[in-house]
Amino acid sequence: RINSDRLWDSIMEMAKIGPGIAGGNNRQTLTDADGEGRHLFKRWCEAAGLEMGVDEMGTMFARREGTEPDLPPVYVGSHLDTQPTGGKYDGVLGVLGGLEIVRSLNELDIKTKHPIVVTNWTNEEGARFAPAMMASGVFAGVLDQADVYSHVDKDGKKFGEELERIGWRGTEKVGERKIHAFFELHIEQGPILEDEGIDIGVVTHGQGLKWLQVTLTGKEAHTGSTPMPKRRNAGLGMARVIELVHEIAMDYQPDAVGAVGHMEVYPNSRNIIAGRTLFTIDIRSPEKEVLDAMDGRIREGIDTICEALDIKYQIDQVGHFDPVTFDAGCVKAVRDAAERLGYTHRNIVSGAGHDACWINRVAPTAMVMCPCVDGLSHNEAEEITKEWAAAGADVLFHAVVETAVI
Amino acid sequence: RINSDRLWDSIMEMAKIGPGIAGGNNRQTLTDADGEGRHLFKRWCEAAGLEMGVDEMGTMFARREGTEPDLPPVYVGSHLDTQPTGGKYDGVLGVLGGLEIVRSLNELDIKTKHPIVVTNWTNEEGARFAPAMMASGVFAGVLDQADVYSHVDKDGKKFGEELERIGWRGTEKVGERKIHAFFELHIEQGPILEDEGIDIGVVTHGQGLKWLQVTLTGKEAHTGSTPMPKRRNAGLGMARVIELVHEIAMDYQPDAVGAVGHMEVYPNSRNIIAGRTLFTIDIRSPEKEVLDAMDGRIREGIDTICEALDIKYQIDQVGHFDPVTFDAGCVKAVRDAAERLGYTHRNIVSGAGHDACWINRVAPTAMVMCPCVDGLSHNEAEEITKEWAAAGADVLFHAVVETAVI
Ligand SMILES: NC(=O)NCCC(=O)O
Ligand SMILES: NC(=O)NCCC(=O)O
Repeated sequence: RINSDRLWDSIMEMAKIGPGIAGGNNRQTLTDADGEGRHLFKRWCEAAGLEMGVDEMGTMFARREGTEPDLPPVYVGSHLDTQPTGGKYDGVLGVLGGLEIVRSLNELDIKTKHPIVVTNWTNEEGARFAPAMMASGVFAGVLDQADVYSHVDKDGKKFGEELERIGWRGTEKVGERKIHAFFELHIEQGPILEDEGIDIGVVTHGQGLKWLQVTLTGKEAHTGSTPMPKRRNAGLGMARVIELVHEIAMDYQPDAVGAVGHMEVYPNSRNIIAGRTLFTIDIRSPEKEVLDAMDGRIREGIDTICEALDIKYQIDQVGHFDPVTFDAGCVKAVRDAAERLGYTHRNIVSGAGHDACWINRVAPTAMVMCPCVDGLSHNEAEEITKEWAAAGADVLFHAVVETAVI
Repeated sequence: RINSDRLWDSIMEMAKIGPGIAGGNNRQTLTDADGEGRHLFKRWCEAAGLEMGVDEMGTMFARREGTEPDLPPVYVGSHLDTQPTGGKYDGVLGVLGGLEIVRSLNELDIKTKHPIVVTNWTNEEGARFAPAMMASGVFAGVLDQADVYSHVDKDGKKFGEELERIGWRGTEKVGERKIHAFFELHIEQGPILEDEGIDIGVVTHGQGLKWLQVTLTGKEAHTGSTPMPKRRNAGLGMARVIELVHEIAMDYQPDAVGAVGHMEVYPNSRNIIAGRTLFTIDIRSPEKEVLDAMDGRIREGIDTICEALDIKYQIDQVGHFDPVTFDAGCVKAVRDAAERLGYTHRNIVSGAGHDACWINRVAPTAMVMCPCVDGLSHNEAEEITKEWAAAGADVLFHAVVETAVI
């Protein structure tokens, strides 16, 4: 078993960097706080005798040598970046859970044939720069490095320049590493495990996602003196699209979800009818057909809404992944570990996207999930217990060591 | 007749200060650009021999002495502040139209019995600090000076401190001036005059307004892993209220308008269900009963919407004025002037709020309107012709001089 106090203390130590305003974290990708968090992780890795590699996407790879160094390593990790109002565990548990495995192996003086590499993937959240799971997407060859380097945040800052600025652009080419297997531990971010009182989620599948960025262009005009029939109200258009997305998601739920969390309004003045709005639709389903059907209905609906309001629209897909089926062998390793350790467990579909979803395309991959209080995540109040974290890290430990072979 | 070239040149000169990004202006109240605009206006006033007074709200009063200095002055003016994406004429025409009257009187060596005071009211737009028509509201005793000093902009800056910072907080007590009559020239900001090919709007009434600032509080949560029935989506709530406001306004139009132009979303991340939204509802009607009925239906509707979504709400009224009936004598002076000068004219109700609406409560007041292209205002593309401006200023000239008595 891993050392649950040490794991917990490390999580709390990391949470001091980029504190939020309500007990959580704001350590968004490529901010100074992200840089500081990386340095702390690096110091811990060096203290554990690991060798750090950094690729051109800024992803950190901390290697514990195997007894057969030429064998491809087993990778384990997640991400240290957070939402602007994020929790202390989303991503962090997976990275520091990986570190805890290595610390435990060191302490127990256990050697594995395959090297083990603890990984911190850059920009998993996609909050500052779309899309989410950006570095793992480039690693898996699904996203283009030059393209994502040019993506800008709300202030117009480029991903590539910010990566350079915080000093974490490495020299290693992205995606050239051979991966024997990848395991990611993550909090569920949903209510199922807690509701059912189950310790471990054996993640068999991941939902697919689409992010559709919509720009509506109407006409700025006075809210008082412009007659109702003359208005071309991009704010009203946005409101109708938000309702449309909700209705479509309700039609397909529980096999789908949908919402708009990101909205911008121009010029955003009390007495000006919005001339332009920009917002991102987030739709997800474990079924590709459902996701495609929702996408189709949304596009049709936007067309109808805009026609009625005499406004123009543009739709840009700024994020996308198909539903994922994780590797049967890796999933079995997770289930066997939970079984062996005596934890209650069940199969589960990940509602969120994870770096594991992309890495699954280039290497055998699986995930371990532990419950979180009220299923709450992407909220500073995100909470888990030390026992839940320990159970998840124990299962991760056994699955990884089993795969890396003693 | 006034000198239309000189008036036009001054408008274009003022438009160089605080330029927008699309040909209009961003000279929001109490910004450095506002300060610069005030200095230019002051220099012009001094060159015309006027004496400048500034009150504690920063309102500028440029006085041309009358032959009977003890008579209360005739006031004429409007505002020099603009929307963030405002036009070159909204407000400016009225202030510089007033200055043009004085320049013409000087040139023609005409003396009036009553002094004439050209006025620039502070923060008419209400874009940076709610409410609109702030300084004239304090002058009329409807708004409280200490209260509005404490109002903050989006960056948390206080009105009182920003007024001090730009150096335009005067020492004169607000509202102590005696006003014989007040005339305001303004562009229509709506399509009626242009559609009907009429030169002059004789403004008999003004619409009433309410600004309701609504805060919705739901729960931040993950857009992917939070089941639809568990969501408490403040973004969806906002969308439904926007639609509600539109539907209610449509029920009462053409006797009412309604929209939401100002919206803020927290934390505004693509994959976080909004935990909080804040937005301002703008509803207007020339009928007080209609305005009150709309207000009631909106409050009821918000309650129903929030109950269904399990979110909390707070409603703060951040702006309000009742419908206005302008002074019969002043209105007649405007109509007679248009008639005498041979301009086509019609009675009109102001769709927008104006400083004249507040001053009408403490002194006989009327307004002159001229057409604007496509009825467009609160848009950088706002446009008028030199001829329209000249006709409006001519009518203003005659109405003012008639009232100030030669
Ligand atoms: N796990 C997680 O919150 N990832 C961010 C990407 C997503 O929105 O699913
Ligand atoms: N005239 C004008 O645009 N005033 C601003 C206040 C309002 O919204 O009516």
